[in-house]
Amino acid sequence: MSPEDLKALVRTVPDFPARGIQFRDITTLIAHGQGLAATMDHLVAYASKADVAAIAGIEARGFIFGAAIAARMGLGFIPLRKAGKLPVPSIGIDYDLEYGKARIELDPGAVDEGGRVLLVDDLLATGGTAKAGAALLRQAGAVVDHALFVIDLPELGGGNLLRENGIEVSALMQFAGH
Amino acid sequence: MSPEDLKALVRTVPDFPARGIQFRDITTLIAHGQGLAATMDHLVAYASKADVAAIAGIEARGFIFGAAIAARMGLGFIPLRKAGKLPVPSIGIDYDLEYGKARIELDPGAVDEGGRVLLVDDLLATGGTAKAGAALLRQAGAVVDHALFVIDLPELGGGNLLRENGIEVSALMQFAGH
Repeated sequence: MSPEDLKALVRTVPDFPARGIQFRDITTLIAHGQGLAATMDHLVAYASKADVAAIAGIEARGFIFGAAIAARMGLGFIPLRKAGKLPVPSIGIDYDLEYGKARIELDPGAVDEGGRVLLVDDLLATGGTAKAGAALLRQAGAVVDHALFVIDLPELGGGNLLRENGIEVSALMQFAGH
Repeated sequence: MSPEDLKALVRTVPDFPARGIQFRDITTLIAHGQGLAATMDHLVAYASKADVAAIAGIEARGFIFGAAIAARMGLGFIPLRKAGKLPVPSIGIDYDLEYGKARIELDPGAVDEGGRVLLVDDLLATGGTAKAGAALLRQAGAVVDHALFVIDLPELGGGNLLRENGIEVSALMQFAGH
């Protein structure tokens, strides 16, 4: 299935989680067996170009794609977790969301000093979460110069924000509007 | 790598999240490239015996394994989400944890009436979460008669609880004690 076919499997939910936001929902894409497999094939093809030593995914939807890509490529997977989930001393970063605030945490022992890590999430909106994830990985010693998403909403500016921070952006599909 | 090799990659953290609990932490297993790939290979081999139409995974660590298994098998993936995450009207169930309370939710539109679903999570302890997940999938019309875990802690009784509820249990490795 082509990225255009896969785009047709994404559901748009109006006014979630706040009025005026068109939520692009991957639930319908990943519930589709062929759609999920094809999505992973495309993501692995993108990731293979990025010459990385590990894949990081952002909790929770980034786990769906990031871990599968890592396993297919024989690379380690580094989960960027919500606050309070890691059982060992961790490093964390607070950041602003499009709608609210959040914190992600990382076990620095999971990161090899100087290793190149590909950051994966389902959706790129304003880029706040991905920027924080890259900063956290860099704090732990990783090189982060590429991020990969299933969906990019270019009008929200996340791609520009990441590029300004030295991160090249790839996405399987784009949606216009917010 | 054999299940015994993979078991050696799991980290044990004492007294997390509560005193007296030995937390079996998969962070170190999934950070290991070969270890992650071999874990997925073994899980897919188990899942392939279960003749299912879809894979369900429990947020968040169940997403790491469940989605990768589904993609490898060409099946759809059904996320069982924490409360308030789904953008569409959902069904939910409250349940008791070994240490606390929780709620998971499901988009019933992701479940095919009468379809057999394999439930996947990283760890089976008392079985409360998995029992709730199976009940929720059944409420949405799925047949659930098999659950698959990376780690089983048999002394906590989760396997017996699930079998009493008509669910056969497979796990890649077991740890003695709590």
